[in-house]
Amino acid sequence: MKRTLGELAEVIQGELRGPADLVLEGIAPIDRATPRDITFIARSKYARLAAQSQAAAFIVSPEQADLNRPRIVVPNPYLAYAQIAAVFAPPRRRWPGVSNLACLGREVELGQEVSIAPLVFIGDRVHLGDRVTLMPGCVVGDDVRIGADSVLYPQVTVLERCTLGERVIIHSGTVVGSDGFGFVPGKEGHFKIPQLGVAVIEDDVEIGANCTIDRGALGETRIGRGTKMDNLVHVAHNVIVGENSILVAQVGISGSVKLGKGVVIGGQAGLVGHIEVGDGVQITAQAGVTSSIKPGQIVGGSPALPYREAVRAYTMLARLPEIHQRLKQAEQKIKELEDRLEKEPSS
Amino acid sequence: MKRTLGELAEVIQGELRGPADLVLEGIAPIDRATPRDITFIARSKYARLAAQSQAAAFIVSPEQADLNRPRIVVPNPYLAYAQIAAVFAPPRRRWPGVSNLACLGREVELGQEVSIAPLVFIGDRVHLGDRVTLMPGCVVGDDVRIGADSVLYPQVTVLERCTLGERVIIHSGTVVGSDGFGFVPGKEGHFKIPQLGVAVIEDDVEIGANCTIDRGALGETRIGRGTKMDNLVHVAHNVIVGENSILVAQVGISGSVKLGKGVVIGGQAGLVGHIEVGDGVQITAQAGVTSSIKPGQIVGGSPALPYREAVRAYTMLARLPEIHQRLKQAEQKIKELEDRLEKEPSS
Amino acid sequence: MKRTLGELAEVIQGELRGPADLVLEGIAPIDRATPRDITFIARSKYARLAAQSQAAAFIVSPEQADLNRPRIVVPNPYLAYAQIAAVFAPPRRRWPGVSNLACLGREVELGQEVSIAPLVFIGDRVHLGDRVTLMPGCVVGDDVRIGADSVLYPQVTVLERCTLGERVIIHSGTVVGSDGFGFVPGKEGHFKIPQLGVAVIEDDVEIGANCTIDRGALGETRIGRGTKMDNLVHVAHNVIVGENSILVAQVGISGSVKLGKGVVIGGQAGLVGHIEVGDGVQITAQAGVTSSIKPGQIVGGSPALPYREAVRAYTMLARLPEIHQRLKQAEQKIKELEDRLEKEPSS
Repeated sequence: MKRTLGELAEVIQGELRGPADLVLEGIAPIDRATPRDITFIARSKYARLAAQSQAAAFIVSPEQADLNRPRIVVPNPYLAYAQIAAVFAPPRRRWPGVSNLACLGREVELGQEVSIAPLVFIGDRVHLGDRVTLMPGCVVGDDVRIGADSVLYPQVTVLERCTLGERVIIHSGTVVGSDGFGFVPGKEGHFKIPQLGVAVIEDDVEIGANCTIDRGALGETRIGRGTKMDNLVHVAHNVIVGENSILVAQVGISGSVKLGKGVVIGGQAGLVGHIEVGDGVQITAQAGVTSSIKPGQIVGGSPALPYREAVRAYTMLARLPEIHQRLKQAEQKIKELEDRLEKEPSS
Repeated sequence: MKRTLGELAEVIQGELRGPADLVLEGIAPIDRATPRDITFIARSKYARLAAQSQAAAFIVSPEQADLNRPRIVVPNPYLAYAQIAAVFAPPRRRWPGVSNLACLGREVELGQEVSIAPLVFIGDRVHLGDRVTLMPGCVVGDDVRIGADSVLYPQVTVLERCTLGERVIIHSGTVVGSDGFGFVPGKEGHFKIPQLGVAVIEDDVEIGANCTIDRGALGETRIGRGTKMDNLVHVAHNVIVGENSILVAQVGISGSVKLGKGVVIGGQAGLVGHIEVGDGVQITAQAGVTSSIKPGQIVGGSPALPYREAVRAYTMLARLPEIHQRLKQAEQKIKELEDRLEKEPSS
Repeated sequence: MKRTLGELAEVIQGELRGPADLVLEGIAPIDRATPRDITFIARSKYARLAAQSQAAAFIVSPEQADLNRPRIVVPNPYLAYAQIAAVFAPPRRRWPGVSNLACLGREVELGQEVSIAPLVFIGDRVHLGDRVTLMPGCVVGDDVRIGADSVLYPQVTVLERCTLGERVIIHSGTVVGSDGFGFVPGKEGHFKIPQLGVAVIEDDVEIGANCTIDRGALGETRIGRGTKMDNLVHVAHNVIVGENSILVAQVGISGSVKLGKGVVIGGQAGLVGHIEVGDGVQITAQAGVTSSIKPGQIVGGSPALPYREAVRAYTMLARLPEIHQRLKQAEQKIKELEDRLEKEPSS
């Protein structure tokens, strides 16, 4: 695929400073770009690499606007990189219509230009919006609805009655709508609570590979619009994740947790059940959150503390043996002082 | 599906207080129930919501027996909810017999009324008990045995020679019988120890989505009867999990660990290899267990401590900067006392 | 399968002390071996079990060379066990050629004796080396290359353009080449950074079940030759894992991390992005690594400290309530000393 520098400047709505007809064939990091690539300087510390770079052109911020190379100036070079990467991205593999090696149930409703790969299973009464792509090995249960332009990578499972919005992307191996983990303890063992609810994935959500999103016990589990989840994330039954949140890899969220909008959860963090996490909360990696968090707070550690306290506490933890040693010395000195005063005549 | 209040009272063996012929179509939480639903009051704190609830009928404990609404009185309303949810649960999707889009090996023995979906692969000499259900995309290796009434959700893999008991439920994406992680370090790299054993899943076990249960190196990995596992749990080779244990999401159990009966392990906790965990032990979320635990103990923290000690230690951890500050002040005061005594004539 | 003691002595290049024609049918642990099995004494503490063992023969170290039973003496009995287990391992299931229930794209190049199971999907222009085995339910994307003698267990996904070396083993449910987790935050939500790179798995790598290896954003994610990964491991985009490293179950490695050779990472440990971990570093289970580590170091804890410091700090953490108590007593005694000196006439 080829694009001119002028065309790319239009895509990213940037200021062109260089030959509009310069032809580019890809985008690459500054240290690996070839004379056929455009590159970008997202942080000023990388600017010094520009002189050695073989890149044919640069995306730069206003601070680097004077760079003596063909360039496009934009306020946010990192965003521009993402936009140009989308231009050069190979088109996603699609199948023309429904493969005759796919297996469709009854009363399936298909939008226009759906793409269903071989070895896909689709249950009864499934509704697929326009341009939905189901890659090989996906399983879609009865009564599932998937909105327009959504993509399921190979081997995704969406179980019965769950719904996906538009432009949803789900990566391989992820399961949407598995049973929530609910049992009533009894004398004869654990009695299963049937999980009658559903999982709802709103528009523009992206879910990584090998995640598990359980269905609600009675109501629903809901992933809010625009939220992005990394790989191997666990979302339990009846969790509500607010819009535009970020869940990094291996996060685990227990049942009935309610996350606000724009929440960011670092990798391997875990949340106990039935708590509420306010809008804009940030939870650092490996944190263990045991109670509700007010909007805008940052927490870390396990059990989680306000971030600054956590940093101070865990930094000090490394000094705990030294603190213990100093305490022993202080105790010794106190003893000596006491002994000394004992010997002196009291006034 | 419709049931009368009288029928439901029989199912849960409760005391009917209301019209036996009242027709109900579902079960819902107290704040979302419609006039066609029955609801339940599992904790007395929710009793105050009864007045506003639109529910047609209630499941209540003896303390709430006087509620002025159609009701069924039972000792354990939460268990009754689970039982009634089972009544209203939509029947699990089954296929009439063996799909002609499934792929069966040689000498497969099928019980009565097995249900094998399209796109299922079954190896040679597999034995499936009566009413076993294999959903789309499952792979069952050679010589596997699956007991009556067991259900494999879509995309489950059970590898060669492993066995599942009766009424086992395995959720999507889970792998039973993957190779244990065993290598002998050597000069030319890590030499693989062939994993010749099997994994055995006993009766009434339920395993969540995207779990991994490795086969034994020589002997077996065994999940005891009635044990329930949440999603993304890892069980290494030669682990023995006792009966009726609970493993919450993302737990990891290293090789050759032996868990007793009724063990409960919180989410994201990890256990080192070759330790023994006694009956009834509880391990809190994110704990890191590094040594054997006696029956009945509760442990938490990483590395794990007896629970009360862990709570005290981690609570105090937040105060560590303050403790350090106080220690510095104490040291200063001791210095001042020492200086003062220095100046004084010693007796 | 049957082998004589003499044949086995040759396999493990050991010193035969016993009848060369003794027939053996398997290998088993010392306490479970039958009179048809050979067993091994890998640690001297198990030597006392030899007298009761029913094993027909033993693999022993030079220290146990005098054991009065048919035996083979080798420097490393544990390695010899692995080698003999390989002899007795049932051959891996293969399919003769390409199943007619597999689905192959265009221009697929197949080496000699490839084995492609039913219900496998292979994209266009895929290259499979000699004797590659793809088990049921695998999905291999366009332009993927898989080297000779590699094995994909059921339900593995390798996405477009990724490459696997020779003798690679990937266990069920693992995904190679899922999109990296990259978004640019903006006013209208998170803008996806297209992930244009690939994942490269070098020769002799083994990857456990349900792992996720993301493709690079622009360049590549690379798993170095001979590295072994356990189950449920997450490797983010642009991570480089050096040769012969060991990643235990549920480890998570953030984007652009560079691991050296021979690195060992314990279960559930996590690494933040963009750090460098030197050759031979060991990271203990559940550690949280927040900065680069020099070669040869051992670290533990979260946030990670040098191992000895971590052990001291976390051991002392359990005593923190006691330390706090002692500090209070010291403060009290200081107060008493001060009061006492107050009352005395200052010199």
